[in-house]
Amino acid sequence: MHESHEYPDALLACLGSQLLTGDVDPDRVRALSDSDGRTYAELARANGLDPRHIGPDPERLASIAQFVELHVEQGRGLVDLGQPIAVGSSIIGHGRWRLSFIGQGNHAGTTPMAWRRDPMISAAQTVLDVRELGRTYKGARATVGKIDPTPGGTNAIASRVDVWLDVRHDSDEVVASLVADITDAARRTGENEGCAVSLVETSISPTVSFDETLRHQISRVLPNAPILSTGAGHDAGVLAAHLPTAMLFVRNPTGISHAPEEYVEGVDAAAGATALADVLQNLAAV
Amino acid sequence: MHESHEYPDALLACLGSQLLTGDVDPDRVRALSDSDGRTYAELARANGLDPRHIGPDPERLASIAQFVELHVEQGRGLVDLGQPIAVGSSIIGHGRWRLSFIGQGNHAGTTPMAWRRDPMISAAQTVLDVRELGRTYKGARATVGKIDPTPGGTNAIASRVDVWLDVRHDSDEVVASLVADITDAARRTGENEGCAVSLVETSISPTVSFDETLRHQISRVLPNAPILSTGAGHDAGVLAAHLPTAMLFVRNPTGISHAPEEYVEGVDAAAGATALADVLQNLAAV
Repeated sequence: MHESHEYPDALLACLGSQLLTGDVDPDRVRALSDSDGRTYAELARANGLDPRHIGPDPERLASIAQFVELHVEQGRGLVDLGQPIAVGSSIIGHGRWRLSFIGQGNHAGTTPMAWRRDPMISAAQTVLDVRELGRTYKGARATVGKIDPTPGGTNAIASRVDVWLDVRHDSDEVVASLVADITDAARRTGENEGCAVSLVETSISPTVSFDETLRHQISRVLPNAPILSTGAGHDAGVLAAHLPTAMLFVRNPTGISHAPEEYVEGVDAAAGATALADVLQNLAAV
Repeated sequence: MHESHEYPDALLACLGSQLLTGDVDPDRVRALSDSDGRTYAELARANGLDPRHIGPDPERLASIAQFVELHVEQGRGLVDLGQPIAVGSSIIGHGRWRLSFIGQGNHAGTTPMAWRRDPMISAAQTVLDVRELGRTYKGARATVGKIDPTPGGTNAIASRVDVWLDVRHDSDEVVASLVADITDAARRTGENEGCAVSLVETSISPTVSFDETLRHQISRVLPNAPILSTGAGHDAGVLAAHLPTAMLFVRNPTGISHAPEEYVEGVDAAAGATALADVLQNLAAV
């Protein structure tokens, strides 16, 4: 149900859950390094933790009968519906790719416009294509949030530009199809500029549907709560492959997430805590 | 004749010449810091130099009667002309600007395409506009080699993207006109996306024409050497405001510069050294 392939320079999210379940190799985690080259193992030790103890814990995992995650909503579903709390249905499928354009590094002042094979041009066209192609599939999200030119000097035509692509949709076929469209467009735009193009998949996570039985039980406790899916990754998505999981979302007035505008009103936070307590009490009583 | 306005985050090129002439404040140079936050003063001391000694030296400057700089050609002028050595006529005008696009940071997975105010889109369109507008002025060079999204995460719609612009032309009016065109286009593309746009000039250096009398004298010593301008900055361009300066260029078979492909053949390097020796001997004899 849940499947994830991670490669170098991928963001490793939901690390605790992935270590608990064995989805990620603890040796790999211990060797992860930050931008200053300090490893996870070093930083764990510097903070009083023993990095030898991380890794799969089947006994603890088996002791968890059900998992319910309470989270701020990261969209505007609840704002539009005028409700404080929702029950989660699924986490839409999500992949990350790195597109690399390789051209001819050169001097920005001495190289006539006509001689250039500038990978920044291909990268820029690809950013626009990602937006346009993303819009052709209803419900898809396609984003470039990270772009890295080499050497990255003001006075140098880049020799290489890396573009990171984030694509999500609740149909895994749409994700694959959209990425294929984007890759085709990137190859064409690279060819037009005389740039080589390569694509690396850095992670792929198919759509995770939460346990239906558990969801129906929660809906009986919270009869007014609408059912919503989410486009963000969560620990419940990792654990869903191992045990019944569910999510509760709390209204976010801006609908904005991963930015300072993300918040909940105090009254909604209290409603979320109450909802979680009611759900847990009900589950414990069964 | 030579004028330069430098601001924070500008590249400070030809530092030795600029300190000698007083074009740059030594206090500013001592306080410059590298990406690890170490200052010029600290690094100078760590390398056995006393940073108190840097700064304008009018006596030494007055002792230099003429300055002739020998440099690899950073274009293909000599390759096209089938000659090993050229005499420089001018350094074309050159400015650097930072364009900033400010939109709405958000979550790449939870934000529908239609809700986005994504500054990466405006930045990408601007990269393409810089290329297209640069081509409308014969001889102009317009480049984006550096782009920096904030926060720069794979899974985050950027809240801000900075784009560095490098524009050069032998007419200072063309530089100003091209930058105005690019700024207008950037404001339009920002408005279309709901992004605020700002422009900062980080440096501007008008065209520097080398001393004509000195150039004619050198041409008499090197009668076969063609006369070429350059799009790159040089110490001779800084010193030209204070004393007669000239440049000699040596053929670069690739025409590529600021990249590993930049080189000269041994026989051309020898021709360059001989030409410089002949020129200096002639100047000393006058």
